[in-house]
Amino acid sequence: MNEALFTANNVWMLVSTVLVFVMHLGFSTLEAGFVQRKNTVNILFKNAMIISIGLLTYCVVGFNLMYPGVNEGGFFGFAGFGLAMPEGAAGAIAYADGNYTYWTDFIFQGMFAATAATIVSGAVAERIKLNAFLIFATLFVAISYPITGMWKWGAGWLDAAGFYDFAGSTLVHAVGGWGALASVLLLGARKGKYTKDGIKPIPGHSMPLAAIGVFLLWFGWFGFNGGSVLSADPVAVSLVFVTTSLAASAGAVAAFFVSYALFKSHDLSMVLNGILGGLVGITAGADLMSPTDAILIGAIAGAVIPVSVVFFDRIKIDDPVGATSVHLVCGIWGTLAVGIFGAKAGLGQLWTQLYGTLSVGVFTFVFAFGLMYVLKATIGIRVSEEEEERGLDVAEHDMEAYEAGTVTEPGYQMVK
Amino acid sequence: MNEALFTANNVWMLVSTVLVFVMHLGFSTLEAGFVQRKNTVNILFKNAMIISIGLLTYCVVGFNLMYPGVNEGGFFGFAGFGLAMPEGAAGAIAYADGNYTYWTDFIFQGMFAATAATIVSGAVAERIKLNAFLIFATLFVAISYPITGMWKWGAGWLDAAGFYDFAGSTLVHAVGGWGALASVLLLGARKGKYTKDGIKPIPGHSMPLAAIGVFLLWFGWFGFNGGSVLSADPVAVSLVFVTTSLAASAGAVAAFFVSYALFKSHDLSMVLNGILGGLVGITAGADLMSPTDAILIGAIAGAVIPVSVVFFDRIKIDDPVGATSVHLVCGIWGTLAVGIFGAKAGLGQLWTQLYGTLSVGVFTFVFAFGLMYVLKATIGIRVSEEEEERGLDVAEHDMEAYEAGTVTEPGYQMVK
Amino acid sequence: MNEALFTANNVWMLVSTVLVFVMHLGFSTLEAGFVQRKNTVNILFKNAMIISIGLLTYCVVGFNLMYPGVNEGGFFGFAGFGLAMPEGAAGAIAYADGNYTYWTDFIFQGMFAATAATIVSGAVAERIKLNAFLIFATLFVAISYPITGMWKWGAGWLDAAGFYDFAGSTLVHAVGGWGALASVLLLGARKGKYTKDGIKPIPGHSMPLAAIGVFLLWFGWFGFNGGSVLSADPVAVSLVFVTTSLAASAGAVAAFFVSYALFKSHDLSMVLNGILGGLVGITAGADLMSPTDAILIGAIAGAVIPVSVVFFDRIKIDDPVGATSVHLVCGIWGTLAVGIFGAKAGLGQLWTQLYGTLSVGVFTFVFAFGLMYVLKATIGIRVSEEEEERGLDVAEHDMEAYEAGTVTEPGYQMVK
Repeated sequence: MNEALFTANNVWMLVSTVLVFVMHLGFSTLEAGFVQRKNTVNILFKNAMIISIGLLTYCVVGFNLMYPGVNEGGFFGFAGFGLAMPEGAAGAIAYADGNYTYWTDFIFQGMFAATAATIVSGAVAERIKLNAFLIFATLFVAISYPITGMWKWGAGWLDAAGFYDFAGSTLVHAVGGWGALASVLLLGARKGKYTKDGIKPIPGHSMPLAAIGVFLLWFGWFGFNGGSVLSADPVAVSLVFVTTSLAASAGAVAAFFVSYALFKSHDLSMVLNGILGGLVGITAGADLMSPTDAILIGAIAGAVIPVSVVFFDRIKIDDPVGATSVHLVCGIWGTLAVGIFGAKAGLGQLWTQLYGTLSVGVFTFVFAFGLMYVLKATIGIRVSEEEEERGLDVAEHDMEAYEAGTVTEPGYQMVK
Repeated sequence: MNEALFTANNVWMLVSTVLVFVMHLGFSTLEAGFVQRKNTVNILFKNAMIISIGLLTYCVVGFNLMYPGVNEGGFFGFAGFGLAMPEGAAGAIAYADGNYTYWTDFIFQGMFAATAATIVSGAVAERIKLNAFLIFATLFVAISYPITGMWKWGAGWLDAAGFYDFAGSTLVHAVGGWGALASVLLLGARKGKYTKDGIKPIPGHSMPLAAIGVFLLWFGWFGFNGGSVLSADPVAVSLVFVTTSLAASAGAVAAFFVSYALFKSHDLSMVLNGILGGLVGITAGADLMSPTDAILIGAIAGAVIPVSVVFFDRIKIDDPVGATSVHLVCGIWGTLAVGIFGAKAGLGQLWTQLYGTLSVGVFTFVFAFGLMYVLKATIGIRVSEEEEERGLDVAEHDMEAYEAGTVTEPGYQMVK
Repeated sequence: MNEALFTANNVWMLVSTVLVFVMHLGFSTLEAGFVQRKNTVNILFKNAMIISIGLLTYCVVGFNLMYPGVNEGGFFGFAGFGLAMPEGAAGAIAYADGNYTYWTDFIFQGMFAATAATIVSGAVAERIKLNAFLIFATLFVAISYPITGMWKWGAGWLDAAGFYDFAGSTLVHAVGGWGALASVLLLGARKGKYTKDGIKPIPGHSMPLAAIGVFLLWFGWFGFNGGSVLSADPVAVSLVFVTTSLAASAGAVAAFFVSYALFKSHDLSMVLNGILGGLVGITAGADLMSPTDAILIGAIAGAVIPVSVVFFDRIKIDDPVGATSVHLVCGIWGTLAVGIFGAKAGLGQLWTQLYGTLSVGVFTFVFAFGLMYVLKATIGIRVSEEEEERGLDVAEHDMEAYEAGTVTEPGYQMVK
């Protein structure tokens, strides 16, 4: 046991944790920027709650569902409620082959967990009931995400089958995307989006917030992918930095050209989502690719974005932030790309990637659809038309996002 | 001396420094979001100046007041003006038992120092004179903060007495909170806040800025608490990450439920301040707590926030950002919690925690009140009613924060 | 070869990479804040493209132009297209004396490269054609920046001559500044800026965005300067943190006093640019200076900012964000300061610094002017008066930055 190497590895894992944490801010501002002004407080509120609920539930059940430490090659395992360092400080050193401590493992994985719910949050924005969403997010993060996560990262059946997903193109992003798709199908489109006269644009209220979000997500992705090496191994982490960045860059450039070809316009939201598409696409194989592979994977992801966004709009899947295109479509693409490019390319691997991502997708979609269906049948999942019209900020929060003047009064200030 | 371990430890301390630096951006956007649009430039200006003045004064006097290296167990010490590495590079290696260099120590502690003044800045926003505030902040950071800091962290009398404050629930947050309270008492409430017809809400002008601030503060807190281990010790730092994050999460969830119970509304500012309350609360004992302890400490802090905010409003302490509730009340709570939860719990410790936090509080309050009193009696601390009405941006800066059009002209552009 | 030390060094270089990446977000928000609302999407779009194009071109040609590994002491070298790790993982270990890997070197330097074009982007904002700018930025980053960079950092003739530029006061900042100056000379001022009745101010549309940008740039500068140590050497990196921070602080305070003396107003943009000026100023010699030296260098840089901004306005060089003052003037100042202050001070060094910065300046100015001239003569570099009046967001992007309502329709949403 080399104490200095252990310390250096653990420092990197903690830095990665901090970077993945920042992705929650990135999602918050991205989603806030892409919704209408009247729904801004609501989306910020949901994101502040998701990370908080996500970490707590991951502490109580999620971590031990995802890494049960038993039932290798299986579908399900559970190591019990709560956290306890194995054999104290001595256990921490022995944990993970001396690359990081038990606590590091928990907090790094915990930051990942809430991401899946955040992806849903964007797609269902501007019309979902707050309480229904919070219940959905809690159960989705506490139960669904760790179970499918265990299939691969917890040494479950997909891991045994040779499925590869380095940092979560499927396990995090497509999972979030399937949850988003199931929710939107039950929730329906925003009022006025799909009319008899065609598709009516509902532009976001702040492009600076959206752009800040994308840069912060890229920033955080250095920890998301770089930390998924699960050590500070210099060659592996630095290669992951290169492939991640080149894929993001290629995604932007491809989205630039494709969206210009399709729409004859330089659409900022396409370039921003192109960056995200490239990042999601490289995530499954970021450690396996050469720079050229990474550029190709990212470019294809970026090129897919404008086409996918139009496609979902045509079939009337209303997703205000493009989460299904970015996380679901590019998540599947990135998972398949492991079988096409890089060190593991091959028809057998491609097939394994396909049934791996579909298996996770089926479970997640069924879970999310079922859960949302129950919520719809009981407490209801959609705000009233009046509330949607007025905006969720006032309807759900009695607040406005910007310089409200005297129109609304924050709750506590009305207590006189 | 293990060079690699020294290097890894020092890297972590530098990363922590960078994270604590970002808290100044977090405070800037949080405070900017919670003030009215017409006072936005002013609050940004103050925050840009505070970090700059804070680092310079900490270099000139603060660091050597806080870590005099003499007078152990005492009330005051001073190691002279300015900085000088002890015995050159060799001294740097020997410094701090080989965990980090002299320069690292200075810059990490320097980032902490300015925080205390920043906390005051939020509470006195929207009506304090710029020059009075800058003089106050300079002396508060240069003299008051390092003296009480020395009592514990500089091996002074509170350290000798067994007082515990891991990362500054008292030494940083309550100190800032007492400074805020003293200042607000002398400054008075904003015009129109407390009227004959009751408490009139004055909502902040940008919830996205406020939410960005809270996420950035949480982000920075990984360095604030994680760096306070004063090495990269893997078990200690990773445990601190876990306790810090769980306390923040529990603070959010508790504030969610309590504020809904009290106000029947989902108030974003309460959840955001609940996160901050949880962070402040865990700070004194982040290295001593189990995950369960951390959740309880954070939840109590978060639950206290809505009650405290209403309380201060009832007694007409006008604090636009809730700094006294977050930093003073939760800072005291966190300090006491060391005697109630975790490795040091016990009645004796609780008593020590109580008189430690009160001693620091008395010194700080007297210093801040006295200083602000002198400023009030001499140059004045409050802008005129007309200036307050018009907003400090135009009154003090001849600028507007947003797309000013032709109404105002930045100073230099009027030089023709 | 000490594996743990190698790992710790490489972790620091990767953290620095992440921090320099964030500077691109800092530039984005700074520039967005300082332009008018109607040109916000355009500036965000350019910044998202610059980092993407910059990394791709640096991968294809830039890195091998800047570090050709041959032609020591020369003016030009090229190691061929694309990237390939020398001798696989074994080569990575041997690379850079075991301080970091080949991939780390590429990605750290790649983050620097795009910075130069970003500096230009601010100066030419609000009237340049998008396509012309993107072509300019691509060639500037792919060819001009790496060639002059090679002169010093690639062991070229300026390195042989004893020229010193630690982290790029000349090689990055002045290079960006000369590119900006050349471009603005050909592009001309914004309509309505310099009228018969004097200089008309065109205030930026969001001071919070500008302030966020400056804080993020300072944040990133810890990696920009701290990473330029090219290892995690504890004494060197921590000293660089101290000098960098003190120079930024002194820049703010000096700009505060000088701008008040000149304009009788507390101009936020001056303090913000004073911070940036201090940062640019210290960059050439951040590893050579004492704290006192750093404070003096930063203070002079900060004091120069208001004077320089007025000077450029007087000679009708219209630079919406002050990039020429911050990056060109303070970049030259910082380069010269290496001959005046600190470990290398001396008349011989000062002379070398002068002809070094001028040599780089002449090459860069000629390249940028020539390139922009060709673009002007062919595809044109300036939008029409109507487009400038209407704003580039609508003219180039068919979008508005904020809550557009029904006025404009994002391109893809018009596909029905």
